[in-house]
Amino acid sequence: MPTQFDPPSGTRDFLAADYEKREWAFGVLRSVFASYGFEPLQTPAFERIDVLLGKYGDEAEKLVFKILRRGEHEASGEADLALRYDMTVPLARVFAAYGSQLPTPYKRYAIGSVWRADRPGKGRFREFVQCDLDTLGSTSPLADAEVLCAHHDAMVGLGLTDFTILLNSRHVLFGLLEVFDVPEELGLGALISLDKLDKLSPIGVIDELIGRGLPDQTAMELVVTMTAPDATDRIRTLLKKSEVGITGVDEVDQILGLVTAQIPATRIVFTPRMVRGLSYYTGPIWELEAAGVPGSVGSGGRYDHLIDQLGGPEVAATGSSIGIERVLMLLSDDAGARRARLEVAVPVLGDDLATQSFALATAARAAGLRASVYLGASGKLGRQLKWASDSGARLCLIYGNAEREAGTVTVRDMVGAEQTSVPVDGIADYLADLASTLHG
Amino acid sequence: MPTQFDPPSGTRDFLAADYEKREWAFGVLRSVFASYGFEPLQTPAFERIDVLLGKYGDEAEKLVFKILRRGEHEASGEADLALRYDMTVPLARVFAAYGSQLPTPYKRYAIGSVWRADRPGKGRFREFVQCDLDTLGSTSPLADAEVLCAHHDAMVGLGLTDFTILLNSRHVLFGLLEVFDVPEELGLGALISLDKLDKLSPIGVIDELIGRGLPDQTAMELVVTMTAPDATDRIRTLLKKSEVGITGVDEVDQILGLVTAQIPATRIVFTPRMVRGLSYYTGPIWELEAAGVPGSVGSGGRYDHLIDQLGGPEVAATGSSIGIERVLMLLSDDAGARRARLEVAVPVLGDDLATQSFALATAARAAGLRASVYLGASGKLGRQLKWASDSGARLCLIYGNAEREAGTVTVRDMVGAEQTSVPVDGIADYLADLASTLHG
Repeated sequence: MPTQFDPPSGTRDFLAADYEKREWAFGVLRSVFASYGFEPLQTPAFERIDVLLGKYGDEAEKLVFKILRRGEHEASGEADLALRYDMTVPLARVFAAYGSQLPTPYKRYAIGSVWRADRPGKGRFREFVQCDLDTLGSTSPLADAEVLCAHHDAMVGLGLTDFTILLNSRHVLFGLLEVFDVPEELGLGALISLDKLDKLSPIGVIDELIGRGLPDQTAMELVVTMTAPDATDRIRTLLKKSEVGITGVDEVDQILGLVTAQIPATRIVFTPRMVRGLSYYTGPIWELEAAGVPGSVGSGGRYDHLIDQLGGPEVAATGSSIGIERVLMLLSDDAGARRARLEVAVPVLGDDLATQSFALATAARAAGLRASVYLGASGKLGRQLKWASDSGARLCLIYGNAEREAGTVTVRDMVGAEQTSVPVDGIADYLADLASTLHG
Repeated sequence: MPTQFDPPSGTRDFLAADYEKREWAFGVLRSVFASYGFEPLQTPAFERIDVLLGKYGDEAEKLVFKILRRGEHEASGEADLALRYDMTVPLARVFAAYGSQLPTPYKRYAIGSVWRADRPGKGRFREFVQCDLDTLGSTSPLADAEVLCAHHDAMVGLGLTDFTILLNSRHVLFGLLEVFDVPEELGLGALISLDKLDKLSPIGVIDELIGRGLPDQTAMELVVTMTAPDATDRIRTLLKKSEVGITGVDEVDQILGLVTAQIPATRIVFTPRMVRGLSYYTGPIWELEAAGVPGSVGSGGRYDHLIDQLGGPEVAATGSSIGIERVLMLLSDDAGARRARLEVAVPVLGDDLATQSFALATAARAAGLRASVYLGASGKLGRQLKWASDSGARLCLIYGNAEREAGTVTVRDMVGAEQTSVPVDGIADYLADLASTLHG
C-alpha cells in the first residue's frame, strides 16, 4: 500500500545496505573501465528540451519528464528543460561542445541516473541507472573488441561468470537477406521477425514473415536455416556468396580472434540470428545473456552514424551498455555490504565519563576502525550492549567507574562475550593490532 | 558565449579531470563518515510536489524546478513532481516512512545533487552537490560533538587544515537578549542585525538595531560588548545572570571538552556573536570559515523540531552540512587526479599484428596496469607514440615485425625515451614488477 511517505511511483530510496551494494558495483565498473583507459563523463540531470526532443521517436518521447518554465513563465504551462532520457544524447552534445579538448579517440564511460515515465512494474523503474561505455573516433575492430572486453571484465569483476555473449554483425544479417533474395523493402521487417526466434515458435516466425509479404518458400528456408542445429556452419557457407555477408563474417571472426586472450571461448558465441531491435547499429553487434534472467543484461555494437543523427558531428562510434539494474539483481544481497557497519562501539556510563568514552571512539578511528559512542539516553550497560550488537560492532570498549579506578579499559568481544582488561596507556597499541587483524 | 552545445544555464559537464577530483573528494567524505558509523542514504532526484512545497517559504519555492504532468495531463500545464531542493525534506520523509527499520539513533549522510533555479553566477549553480551529515533521535551533546568531529575530519581528509570552526549556541544568544533587556518581540530581528557584525561596521549595526526599535543605550551596549577584544570573557561573565545563558555556555563548553582529542583548540572558537541566519536551530550552532573564502564553507547545529515541521515525526536532531562545492574550489586541480590516465600504451604496427598488440594490453591489465591499444588509423610509429604521450602513458609496449622475428617486445620509457628488449615469455613478469613499482 503506498503511503504519503513513499518515494514517487517508480523511484526508490536506497538505505544503507542497498546503497553500499550499488556503490560497490559502480566502483568495480569504474575501476575496470579505467584499466582500459576509458574516461568518466558526467552531464547534468536535465538538458534543454530542444536537445532532447526529436531524437527518440514519438513513443519514447511520451516518456520524457519535462520541466516547467519558472517565474512569470510558469503559468504558460510550457517546458524548457527535460530530464535525461539516456546517456547517448548528452554524449553527442558533449562531443560537439568539447571535441577539440577531448582525446582522440574519445573513450568515455558514464554511470548515472536516467528518468523515463514508463509504467512502473517489477524491475521497471522511472529512475534507474544506466552504465554506458563508448569509443568515439575509431573505425578499428580493435575498438569494438576493447569495449566488449571491458564489458566482459566488468561482469567478471562483479563476480558474474555464468553469462554468454551473443556476437553477430549487421552485415551478416544483410548478407542473409541478400542470399535468400528477400526484397530490399521487406528487409528490416524480416529482421524484426527473425529477432523473435527466441520467443516465438519457428512456425510462428514463418507465419509472421509471410504476413510481411515474403514468398512462402523464402520464409521457410530462412527459418529452417537459422534454426538448424548446425545453423552457424550452414550460414558461414551460404554467406560466401554475398560480399556484404563476407564482410560480416570477417568482422565477427576478427573480434573473436582479438578477444581470445581475455574472454573464454565458451562465453562468446557467433549467433547469426541475433538482430538487436535498434536500427542504428552499422557493424558488429552483441548481447549478453545471463543464466536465470529473461532477456539481455547488456548489449552493444558499432553505430557509425548515430552521434551525427543525435545532433553531434559525424564520427565513427562503438559502445556497450551494461544493464546494471538487472545485473544488480543478480548479485547477492551482501555483495559489497557491511562496509559502513560499526566495528567498535563505546558505551557511555555516566555524564562524567562522556569525555573519556568519546576519546576512546576517537582513538579507535585514529587506528583506522569504524567507531562510535552510544548516543542514547539509557545509562544501563545492558541496553547499551544491545545497541552495540544491533550496530554490528565487533567489540565494545567499556570505561566505567571501576575501569577509571583501575586505569584500564574493558574490551568486550561481541561475538564470544569474552572480556579483557587493557591498561589505558596501552589501548592505542591494542586498537592498532586489532585494525591490522580485521583489515588484513 | 553560450552555444547550442553548452549544458543548460547554471549546470556543468564534468569531463575526466573534474570528475576524478569530485569522485575522489566524495570518496574521502564517505570514508570519514563511515568511520563514525554514519550510514549512506540516497533518495530519488524528484519528490511528489506536495512533499516539497510549503516547506521552504515563498522566496525559496520560486526556485523549485517543477515537473510537468505527463500524457493526457500534460496539456493542463500542471506539475505533480519537483526536483529535490535540499537533503533535509527527503530525510524527513524517509524517517517517517522507514522509522522502525532504521537504527536508533539514525546517523546518516547524503551526498547528492540538488536543483535550484537561482540566478547562475560565479560559484553559483542550478545543479550542485550537497553533503549533509545528521543524527536523528539523540538529545545528547555527544551527538553534536560527533557530527562536528566528523565534519572536521572530512575537511582534514580533503587536505584542508586552514579553517576555523565558530561555535555558539542559540541559548547563548537568547541569554544575551535577556541580559540586555531586549524586548522579546524584537529578539529575532536583533539577532539578524548582530549577525552582520562581520560585514557592517559596529556603527552600522547599532543604527540597524535602533531602526528595529531597540533603545539607543541597549543597542550601543550590545554592540560594544560583542565587538570588544575580550568579548567572549565579558559575555561569559554577563551570562551568569541568565538561566538560558548558563545553559548555552554549558552546551558550548561541553562540546569544546568532548572534541579536544580530535580538534586542535586553535581550530574551534566560542564565538558569541555568531548567529546563523536560519531560525530552526534550537541548541549548539557552528559555522566553518576557511582562509581566502568569503562566507562559510560549512555549518550546522541542533534542530530538535525541524523534522516534525517538514512533515516527519517529532525527533531530536543535529547535523552539519559541508559546503562541498566551495570546498572543492579550495582543492588544487590535481587533487585525486590522473587516476584514470593510461599507464601502458600499445601501438599497433600492422593489421596482422593487431591480435598480439591487443593481447599485450590485456597482459598489462592482468598485471594491474591501466592499458590500451592504439585505435586510430595511422600505421606510423611516430604518430602512435604521440598518441601514447598525449594519453599520459608511462611506457609503450612495441611489437612490430622486428620484434616478431626476435621473439621480443620493445619497452619504451615515455619519459626518458630509453628502450629495452624483453623476451615475449618474460613480459608478464616484467609487467608485474612494473605494477608493483608504480603502485607501491
